[in-house]
Amino acid sequence: MTEVKFEQISPSEFFYKNRDIAGFSSPSRSLYMSIRELVENSLDAAEAGRILPDIYVQLTLEKDVDAESDVKIFKLRVEDNGIGVAGEQIPRAFATVLYGSKYGYKQSRGTFGLGGTMALLYGQITTNRPATVISSNNGREIHKYQLMIDVIENKPRIMGHEVLENKDKWRGTIIEFYLEADYTGSRAKIIEYFKNTAIVNPHATITFVDNRGRLYHFPRVIDKVPEPPRESKPHPIGVDVETMTRLLSSTRAGNLVSFLTTAFQKVGEKTAREVLDLAKLPYEMKPRELSHDEVTALVEAIKRYGKFRSPDPNPLSPIGKDFLESGIRQMLKPDFLHVVQRPPSSYSGYPFIVEAAVAYGGDIPATESINLYRFANKIPLLYDERADVAWKVVTEKIDWSTYKVPRVAPLAVFTSICSSKIPYKTVGKEAIADRPEIERELTTAIRECARHLKLYLSKIEKRVAVAKRLSIYAKYLPKIAEFSAKTAGREKAPDVSQLLKKIGVTAEMVAQARREEEEEVVEIG
Amino acid sequence: MTEVKFEQISPSEFFYKNRDIAGFSSPSRSLYMSIRELVENSLDAAEAGRILPDIYVQLTLEKDVDAESDVKIFKLRVEDNGIGVAGEQIPRAFATVLYGSKYGYKQSRGTFGLGGTMALLYGQITTNRPATVISSNNGREIHKYQLMIDVIENKPRIMGHEVLENKDKWRGTIIEFYLEADYTGSRAKIIEYFKNTAIVNPHATITFVDNRGRLYHFPRVIDKVPEPPRESKPHPIGVDVETMTRLLSSTRAGNLVSFLTTAFQKVGEKTAREVLDLAKLPYEMKPRELSHDEVTALVEAIKRYGKFRSPDPNPLSPIGKDFLESGIRQMLKPDFLHVVQRPPSSYSGYPFIVEAAVAYGGDIPATESINLYRFANKIPLLYDERADVAWKVVTEKIDWSTYKVPRVAPLAVFTSICSSKIPYKTVGKEAIADRPEIERELTTAIRECARHLKLYLSKIEKRVAVAKRLSIYAKYLPKIAEFSAKTAGREKAPDVSQLLKKIGVTAEMVAQARREEEEEVVEIG
Repeated sequence: MTEVKFEQISPSEFFYKNRDIAGFSSPSRSLYMSIRELVENSLDAAEAGRILPDIYVQLTLEKDVDAESDVKIFKLRVEDNGIGVAGEQIPRAFATVLYGSKYGYKQSRGTFGLGGTMALLYGQITTNRPATVISSNNGREIHKYQLMIDVIENKPRIMGHEVLENKDKWRGTIIEFYLEADYTGSRAKIIEYFKNTAIVNPHATITFVDNRGRLYHFPRVIDKVPEPPRESKPHPIGVDVETMTRLLSSTRAGNLVSFLTTAFQKVGEKTAREVLDLAKLPYEMKPRELSHDEVTALVEAIKRYGKFRSPDPNPLSPIGKDFLESGIRQMLKPDFLHVVQRPPSSYSGYPFIVEAAVAYGGDIPATESINLYRFANKIPLLYDERADVAWKVVTEKIDWSTYKVPRVAPLAVFTSICSSKIPYKTVGKEAIADRPEIERELTTAIRECARHLKLYLSKIEKRVAVAKRLSIYAKYLPKIAEFSAKTAGREKAPDVSQLLKKIGVTAEMVAQARREEEEEVVEIG
Repeated sequence: MTEVKFEQISPSEFFYKNRDIAGFSSPSRSLYMSIRELVENSLDAAEAGRILPDIYVQLTLEKDVDAESDVKIFKLRVEDNGIGVAGEQIPRAFATVLYGSKYGYKQSRGTFGLGGTMALLYGQITTNRPATVISSNNGREIHKYQLMIDVIENKPRIMGHEVLENKDKWRGTIIEFYLEADYTGSRAKIIEYFKNTAIVNPHATITFVDNRGRLYHFPRVIDKVPEPPRESKPHPIGVDVETMTRLLSSTRAGNLVSFLTTAFQKVGEKTAREVLDLAKLPYEMKPRELSHDEVTALVEAIKRYGKFRSPDPNPLSPIGKDFLESGIRQMLKPDFLHVVQRPPSSYSGYPFIVEAAVAYGGDIPATESINLYRFANKIPLLYDERADVAWKVVTEKIDWSTYKVPRVAPLAVFTSICSSKIPYKTVGKEAIADRPEIERELTTAIRECARHLKLYLSKIEKRVAVAKRLSIYAKYLPKIAEFSAKTAGREKAPDVSQLLKKIGVTAEMVAQARREEEEEVVEIG
């Protein structure tokens, strides 16, 4: 008999041991992850209160660990003007893994109740210093905490707590902590992150000051808070027995018909009755009295029913065609741009909206591979591009040559998905799974953009062909005229300028043709 | 003041809500994941007891949910002859998330204490039925449990428990549960998984019977149990303050010198003293008396020290050059094969060994992209190929054209990494992160294989060139002879066969050249 030691570990222990999974895999990527997790919390905190976000991020060099290495100890500070966190919630909200406010059926940047705490945990295990969290959620008192995480128990260790006066009625959150990081190796990604975040959040002012005092300031472009996403009821499709059991036990409804119509979206009385018929359950049955097998029968009936209307897309807040277009124009100054917003769709009961854009020329570098910009719930995704469904679509589903795109081309593709649940492949939120419904919508959207690009490229092709033909006229018609004059023994060649003008050749083009010819002669000579 | 509802969720709730993260993203991939998690537990359970594994997997169709869909309810049964699980441990081992036996510093297929339970959890939420676990770890009594998982509390719900007689002194584990799955969509991957698992585990007998009664049997090829990986002490590099604090509080050592030499590998008395000097800590200090700042100082001193010997690779168990070679030969029958095993290396204090092979020709399909076969701790990795460090190496770090590989080629690359901690990017264990040390070793190994491939391809090229030259002789020398004879008025051409033989042209080659010429004439005619 072999001795085996079993052990239960806490979720914070799990993520402590497996931080690669949450994206904290190296000193450079961990800095990027820390910044993005905290900035996204700040954006969510402003959105929840319909506040125009004002976010200030500061990176300060604290200590050189080793003169030869780029890995150093930094202090990271993130300030926002969001809704703040209630004093008594601060310790657990920031120093407990899987404790969060974002588990609802609602679009939000954060999803896992993990990111902010992961950043502080990473800081703690690399520097052994507590994090400082300062917040006010009511404009009255300000709470200031010094926190560490008890990894084994997954609970906060409060190292200090003060309540401060709040003369200016400030509201918001400030987080400051130390971490081991490689800024040299992550700077490009971090700046790209800020830039792209600003593009899709034009109502936010974002400022980043790095350890050398370099200032990256992205001022607010639009003074309107976008319609915030709303919480919605679950859609029946995508509800499994686990969720069904919970909904049944927490409902106030007195019978199954009223349970189905109140607990779910898109279920009216008629639908409810049809589903119950299919499940062979009486309409008047009390929700709490369903047996194990009856719950299963209800869930299976919902799966077989097949006639539900699509989930309500109202809780979603896409970037918007105009925002996307102006953002891209500002960033890449393309010669061609086409933006598409698809109608709402759904997967497993979660609504989603795909937006896509194809840009060509301008500041876009011409490369063999495609410049792909990905966004999800208004945050840019910068790592693990090749694991993402969007990469699959642009490289495998779309044959760019059929759209007249040359092999090396200044082509950029933008994709954005918003959903009350983005199916991320990793806790690090960098790659989206290839759910068939999402893949299909992305493909349709990008194809539509590509068809417009083809028209544009065809026009260019035609224009080039026309210009070429005209330049031949510009070059040879005057010569033919001269030659005919000579042959006929006349002094003066006939004036062909009217003829040239008629077919679209200007005097400038003729001069240009002459200059080119002279150069050729010189070169040959 | 905006009302925010905070919520703490259990780890099982977390993985229930985010099963994409653990690879359970669709009915087809979930079946693949369930099989692989359970088979890997079985392989680990045999390895732990130095038992030749005998694993039997059976898939049975239970119910058609919808005649038009490939998604059906299946029963999955996995039987092994491993060390078994003690009766009192069974409920928690199989129905609690993050409860496991694999958290040590040791190479094992499982790593997260998650996979087996995830499979049962997936089964439960899609079918609402309990799982059956039957096990004996001592050859005496057999425990049979019916289990479900309490997702909210993350603890087992025991629906039934019997203790059975064990006349045959059977030892092992049988798991049987129901799940919603798409076998049509995952069959190819599942068979590939079994095939590749058998290749790198030639000491295992693996049998799979699917719902149509098709039998896939991979019998044991080698009757020797490979040296099992051993548990080792942590290497000082890679130990952060969190781990250091734990080690300090659990040591029996009376002073810091003896603490460092006993708690870590590769630390002798001299090294210990040097590290303590660097940390400005007295040798005789008691481990439990270190202050917070002193623990930090000790960890930082270790990071700065820079003179530790590499971690001990003895706990590792690579596939082995011979096993890899015979496996690949059997599978692909390549014309060329070169296998490399690199010396042990390490990242963040974890030892690892890279093995690689390049095969060419034979049964390998000629494609534009590379046929990549990835393994980690003796398990094949089949999904998320493009997110893996090996894909990065074969597509970005190696320019195959410099090794004379044509653009479309029958080329296959095998990579295997074994480590006491594989840095997976996802809980689904499909893609390995691009830690620089691993990337470097992979690149070196594959380049070495590629150099041998280049020699082979050069030889082929030369042989083709020689053959071409000789075929010219074979064609024209007899003609020249005839022509000379005619010109000289002789009846009979001189016999050139001796001359041809001397330069390596056989009679067969001459006949071949003549046949070809006749065909050409016919074609032209």
